[in-house]
Amino acid sequence: MSPSDSKPIAAYLGPIASYSQQAALQAFAEDVWYLKPVTTIDDVCDATQDKHAVLGVVPIENSTNGSVVFTLDDLADRDGRYKDIYVNGEIYVDVHHQLLGHKNANAPGPSGHSASGTSTPTAADPTPSKPKSKPLESLDHIKKLYSHPQAFGQCTKFISTYLKNAEKFDVSSTSKAAELVAADTSGTSAAISSKLAGELYKLDTLAASIEDRDDNTTRFLIIGTLPALPVDYPLKQDPAQRTGTKSLVTFTVPHKCPGALADILGCFREFQLDLTSINSRPSLLGPFQYIIFVEFEGHKLDDPDGRVNSALIKIEKMAQKLRWLGSWYTYR
Amino acid sequence: MSPSDSKPIAAYLGPIASYSQQAALQAFAEDVWYLKPVTTIDDVCDATQDKHAVLGVVPIENSTNGSVVFTLDDLADRDGRYKDIYVNGEIYVDVHHQLLGHKNANAPGPSGHSASGTSTPTAADPTPSKPKSKPLESLDHIKKLYSHPQAFGQCTKFISTYLKNAEKFDVSSTSKAAELVAADTSGTSAAISSKLAGELYKLDTLAASIEDRDDNTTRFLIIGTLPALPVDYPLKQDPAQRTGTKSLVTFTVPHKCPGALADILGCFREFQLDLTSINSRPSLLGPFQYIIFVEFEGHKLDDPDGRVNSALIKIEKMAQKLRWLGSWYTYR
Repeated sequence: MSPSDSKPIAAYLGPIASYSQQAALQAFAEDVWYLKPVTTIDDVCDATQDKHAVLGVVPIENSTNGSVVFTLDDLADRDGRYKDIYVNGEIYVDVHHQLLGHKNANAPGPSGHSASGTSTPTAADPTPSKPKSKPLESLDHIKKLYSHPQAFGQCTKFISTYLKNAEKFDVSSTSKAAELVAADTSGTSAAISSKLAGELYKLDTLAASIEDRDDNTTRFLIIGTLPALPVDYPLKQDPAQRTGTKSLVTFTVPHKCPGALADILGCFREFQLDLTSINSRPSLLGPFQYIIFVEFEGHKLDDPDGRVNSALIKIEKMAQKLRWLGSWYTYR
Repeated sequence: MSPSDSKPIAAYLGPIASYSQQAALQAFAEDVWYLKPVTTIDDVCDATQDKHAVLGVVPIENSTNGSVVFTLDDLADRDGRYKDIYVNGEIYVDVHHQLLGHKNANAPGPSGHSASGTSTPTAADPTPSKPKSKPLESLDHIKKLYSHPQAFGQCTKFISTYLKNAEKFDVSSTSKAAELVAADTSGTSAAISSKLAGELYKLDTLAASIEDRDDNTTRFLIIGTLPALPVDYPLKQDPAQRTGTKSLVTFTVPHKCPGALADILGCFREFQLDLTSINSRPSLLGPFQYIIFVEFEGHKLDDPDGRVNSALIKIEKMAQKLRWLGSWYTYR
């Protein structure tokens, strides 16, 4: 890898072998960009705002677990720390979790008493569905299980079927989980982590694709400090493959006028702008006042019939603190 | 406390001395109701759905941290487990966190080298504001700090000013944190927890009201299996004190018709129904399809001009799986 000073930097949520790195590798060619792992989502935003990085990559939502509130809170930018940040694009990563650890050399095979493939019924889930994948190796020796809480939440069927007696430990990233397991010489711990992390830490794959759902996907945003992607340093995304456009705006609603929220959302209908997602976070201006996040189809800078710009002009009059956070092209 | 079989049960998220118990005590008189702590939010919903409890109390949002996704996911009711549940009311609890522990008998007083009252500036927060309260006792002996992640998130200024070197441990509730500290004979641990928990576990108050914001409030929902509160067993809420009405609906949007979301939200404007909150969670029907939660002012069963019922009839034609989750009276 070349030193960072000769190439533009794209910062991503590390450590190495995280799903964010996978997202960055999907969008950025390493012969053009220097991909730099940083420790937190705040650090990605800091590096971008302070122009240590030209672009940044942050997770925004997972198809199973929902929104990433740390990213929403940074984009909410309540104290003006990230005033120059724009969203310039998005990346979808298919998330396949592996169970990584050390094979038990003495075990006969992948069976064991707990490998019936049937979850334990509970009051909340009286007829649990079977996990979609089976262990490749015996798991009888696994006493401790490390992962990120989001990954635990995406693998509940496999865990409740095959690892119900293992003690679970939340760690800061799936990649960190693999690192801890690699360092555990007892061989009785396992990590839920990525294939990339398994290769990096030279761990055995005890089970593959253990996520509950086949369609488990995380969406990442590409952020920068200009309204459009840089032209000098291209991304892997091919303009010929564009499928559409999206924009993100945030706003708050006047406290004395709760009807404004319905009025503002009605504006998107008036200008025939399809909403693709809506979120809210506390504004912290007063209790139970919100910053609303609306993503919709359309591009402020590529707006042939003027619908996006007309809607934003109208919304600006009704909302407080309307901020256009960016428009970008989609590729799926 | 009387045995449960002679009184109707109201289940709340325990353990004893949790903020949910505080919410329950605000709404339910103990001479009428038997207040029963259960372990998880799912357990509150299970007890209510299965009619082991007449009503349940669940946290829905905090003014600093935002929505409680576990409650939203239960109300989303993707698999029909909670098909009979209605929201019957809401309760607001002012959340004041205490730092609870054991006084250091050898310490001179509440000063110590770290008690300057100034947070450490960081890149993300170059001019940190001061915490609003000071320690009542020396904190130099505190090495470990226990609390629920939500409470840590509400006390960041105090922690970064006075407890920056203490190791933090996430536990399942603020009340559990107090219990752990009471059991720690070394006296070097502290809990961020409620005044109620401090009294229950006979802990010293090392600092009071250490939350970042004066207006830190949690909203709870009262749930039941009938569209209205029971008439035989009154709550403390006095009908003469009513301030308004609210309703909650959930729906999904047809996958092939993203414009439907703007159309549906436009309906609330058309019938002049003010939106008070909006949330979304993954529908799990397919990636990036959502269950939308809309709360608005108005009452389906007390709807003199018919606006609520007219809007719901119209929305039913546009949305998929529209569910009216209840209407209730507000008291603040």
